[in-house]
Parts: sequence; C-alpha cells; structure tokens
Amino acid sequence: MPDIAPLSAAERAGALADLTAWTYDEERRALCRKLVLPDFAAAMGLMMQIAVHADRADHHPEWSNVYNRLDIWLTTHDAGGVSHRDVALAQVIDRCVASA
Amino acid sequence: MPDIAPLSAAERAGALADLTAWTYDEERRALCRKLVLPDFAAAMGLMMQIAVHADRADHHPEWSNVYNRLDIWLTTHDAGGVSHRDVALAQVIDRCVASA
Repeated sequence: MPDIAPLSAAERAGALADLTAWTYDEERRALCRKLVLPDFAAAMGLMMQIAVHADRADHHPEWSNVYNRLDIWLTTHDAGGVSHRDVALAQVIDRCVASA
Repeated sequence: MPDIAPLSAAERAGALADLTAWTYDEERRALCRKLVLPDFAAAMGLMMQIAVHADRADHHPEWSNVYNRLDIWLTTHDAGGVSHRDVALAQVIDRCVASA
C-alpha cells in the first residue's frame, strides 16, 4: 500500500517546505504543530473540526490540550514514521486553522 | 481562596480513596486517569462532554488523546498541586464516563 510507506528524508523535507507551520519531531518520528488558540472553547472547537475530518480519513492525530494550547503530532505507526497520510492530514488541519 | 489551596497529602489520600479510577502522578502533581474507549468517536464525544462541564467550572484538564485512548491529568497551577477543584472535576469526569 503506497499510502502507508514512510516518506524518505528528502520527501519529508519537500513536504515540510510547503507545511511552514509544521516541524519534524525526530523522537516521535512525527510532523508536529503547536497551536495557541484564544481560549479553551476555541481549542475544543478546532479539535472537533479536525476530528471529523480525521475520522473520515481513518487517520488520527496524537494530540494534547491544556486550556488554549493544542499540540499535534502526525505519524503513521504502520509506516514507522511520516507517510503521505500525515501530510494530507496536516494540510487538512492547516485549512481548519485558517477557517477557525 | 480556600478552593485553590493545595490539598494536604492526607486530604489527597482521602479523596483518592473515593476516586478509585484515579491515581496521583507525583511528577505532574496531578490526579491522573487513563481511559480506553471503544473508538476515536467515543473518545471525542467523552472529551466534549467533559469540556462543557470543565469550561463552565472554569477549571480545565490537561489531556492527551491517541485514537481511543484518553489520558487526563488534573492539577491546579495556582495551588501548585491538587486542590478541591481537581477533586470536583474528577467526580464530574467519572459521572461523564459512567453515562457514556
């Protein structure tokens, strides 16, 4: 299944060049974005918006929330690292953030 | 404000005797409950249910989700540890879990 193959380092760098809000977390082998929202309700609203898209794609984030902060990691366990599915979900999340 | 005073170790132990699903996380100075739900949608639903109660009480959890797992920590930063507000939120969370 090509969609769960891990990206090469070069492919990952290419993807991150377009995902300017994201970094690569070496330890978690994940794309990472850390967000600060206006308040808790805004953080919950964004999470729910992302959750609907993620569940429809059957690819789910790892995320932590404290009040208005939301930290998100995207990795594909079956691929042992970042795959195209993570890049696609990062793009969806960026659209959710932009429309929030 | 007595509601944000930290509990003594004895008071905390007394609270935990009733909160049987919770443990005390020394490092985070927090009450901790780790949940496994049927799936991602169930985890999101429970989070939203808890979120509404937490925001109304203006006391918010620290939590992480990965697919069907939800890890929750309750601490009161202004108190430097567990306060009565955390015990009250833990009780609310237990009721949410029981009714999910």
